[in-house]
Amino acid sequence: MTDRPSAADASRRGPAADAELALLLEVAGTPKPGNVDRARDLADLRFEHFLAGAVGARPGLERAAAGDPIGEAFETAVAGMSEQSGGNTQFGCLLLLTPLVRAAAADDRPLAPEGVAAVCEATTVADAAGFYRAFEHVDVAVADPPAGMDALDVRRGADAVPALREREATLFDVMAESAEPIDERGTPGDANAREWVEGFPRTFRAAEAIARDDGPIADRAARAFLDLLAEADDTLVRTQHGPEVAREVRERAAEIDSLDEAAAWADELAERGVNPGTTADITAAALFVALERGVAV
Amino acid sequence: MTDRPSAADASRRGPAADAELALLLEVAGTPKPGNVDRARDLADLRFEHFLAGAVGARPGLERAAAGDPIGEAFETAVAGMSEQSGGNTQFGCLLLLTPLVRAAAADDRPLAPEGVAAVCEATTVADAAGFYRAFEHVDVAVADPPAGMDALDVRRGADAVPALREREATLFDVMAESAEPIDERGTPGDANAREWVEGFPRTFRAAEAIARDDGPIADRAARAFLDLLAEADDTLVRTQHGPEVAREVRERAAEIDSLDEAAAWADELAERGVNPGTTADITAAALFVALERGVAV
Repeated sequence: MTDRPSAADASRRGPAADAELALLLEVAGTPKPGNVDRARDLADLRFEHFLAGAVGARPGLERAAAGDPIGEAFETAVAGMSEQSGGNTQFGCLLLLTPLVRAAAADDRPLAPEGVAAVCEATTVADAAGFYRAFEHVDVAVADPPAGMDALDVRRGADAVPALREREATLFDVMAESAEPIDERGTPGDANAREWVEGFPRTFRAAEAIARDDGPIADRAARAFLDLLAEADDTLVRTQHGPEVAREVRERAAEIDSLDEAAAWADELAERGVNPGTTADITAAALFVALERGVAV
Repeated sequence: MTDRPSAADASRRGPAADAELALLLEVAGTPKPGNVDRARDLADLRFEHFLAGAVGARPGLERAAAGDPIGEAFETAVAGMSEQSGGNTQFGCLLLLTPLVRAAAADDRPLAPEGVAAVCEATTVADAAGFYRAFEHVDVAVADPPAGMDALDVRRGADAVPALREREATLFDVMAESAEPIDERGTPGDANAREWVEGFPRTFRAAEAIARDDGPIADRAARAFLDLLAEADDTLVRTQHGPEVAREVRERAAEIDSLDEAAAWADELAERGVNPGTTADITAAALFVALERGVAV
C-alpha cells in the first residue's frame, strides 16, 4: 500500500486541461462561419496556429487553476498562446477561461455563475496590469477607447499601468468600463467584458444548450456558435467592419437552420474577411463549462 | 529586479508541450489515408477523441520530461489519453514520444539518436511493468506473441509482471523481443519496437524531411506520413489485415505523387477499414523531433 496516486488518478483532466481541450474543440467545430475551423483556414491564420495556441496557453491556465493572480495567469497564457506565427488566436477565449478555470478549481461544487462572478469581482489593480501587459505579447484587434479614456487604451500595454494605479482600477473595473454601452442609443459594449461583469450569462446558457444537445461535441459547438451569433452582434465584427455588418451577420445567423446551410455561408464570410471572433470566444468558454459539468468527449 | 521568470519565459513550450503539439499536428495533417485526420472521422473514432487524447496525455509527458521513470510516465500518459470515449487513439505515439521527451529534456544539445537510444537502453524491469500496466487502460490491437512467449503477452497487462521479474526483462528487452523478425523469411517485427531498439532511424529521417519541406507543418506531416508508408509495411495493417494487405498499402503509397492523389485513396482505405496506425505513430514522433530542432508552427 502506498499513498502515491495511481496513474489513472494522476492523469485525470483537471480544469486547466479541460480549458485547453475547450480551445481545441472550439476550433475543431465546423462550420463556424467566418472563422478558422476544422474545415477552413484563413489566408495567414491556420488551424495549426490554433493548435499551437491552445498547447502554449496551458501553463497560464495551470497557474489560474493553482490560484496564482488572475492577471499573471492570463498574461502567461497569452504569452504561451503567442508562440506561433499566426498572430492572435485565442486572446479573447483566454480572457473568459482564466476566471472560469480559477472558479472551477477553487470550488468542489459544480461551476456556477456565482463562483466565477466572485473571482472577477475579487480582481485587483495588479490583475489589471497583467491584462494590459498581455497586449504586449500579441496584436489584438480592439476598438478605440471611449472619450477621455486614452490613458487606459489597452494598446498602450504596460505604459498604461501608472494610469491604472492612479485610478485604482482593478481588472473588474476595466471590464466594467468596456462593457458600458458605446453610444447614446445603448448599443452594448464589448461582449466578453459583459460576460465578466454579468456573471457569464451567455456562456452558461450556451453550456446548457451544449449539454442538452446530441452528437459529437464538436458539432454541438458549431450549433452553439450559430445560436450565440444569432443572439447578439459580434464585437469583433463590429470593431472591424462596423455596426451594419455586425447586425447583418446576426440577422443572417438567425435564419440558419442547419450546419449544411451554415457551411455555404461560411465560405461567403471568409471571402469577405468577416470573422466573428468574439462569438467564438464565448463558444470556447461554454465548451469549458460543459466539460466541467460532465459532458464527455 | 527579481528572479521571477517573465510570463514569456514561463510559458515557452518545453518538450512535453511540444510532444502534445506533435500529437495534434499529426492528426491535423490531411490526407493521411486510412486514418482519422482533419478531414476524416472513422465510424466510432473521431477527430475530437484525438484532441482529448493529446490533452489527456500531457501529465504523463510532463513526467517524462521531469525525469520520472519511463514506464510510469508512459502509463500515466496512456491513462490520461484514455479519458475519452473513442478508445485507443495514441498508444503507439506515446510509446515513441516518452523516451524522446526524456532525451530532449535531459540534454541541452539538439535531440539526436544517441540521446534517445541511451534512454531506451537504460530502462528497467519496473519500466517494463509500467508498459504492461498501460495495456489495462485501453484496448490496443496487437499481434499474438511469438511461440513460448505467452507469459509475456501484453494483453495480460499487470498479470505479466511476475514473469517479467522472473526473466529480468527490461522495457528495452521487451521492445527488442517485439522488434525481432516474425518469420523465417526475416519479415521485420513491430515497427515501433524497431525504432526503440535501433535509435529511432525512421523517426529522425522523417524529421529531417519535415524540416527540409516547405509550407504549413500539417501538410508536411501528411507528406512525411506518405513517405513513411511507402518505405515499410505498416505493423497495424499487417496485424489487422495480414501481410498481403500491408504490402499492397506500401506499394500503393509509393505510387502516390501528391496530396490530391492521396485524398482519393484515403476514402478507399477508410471504407475498407485499413488503418495504417503505426505509420501515424512514427509521423507524430518525427513531428516532435522537428519541433525540438526548431521547425516553427
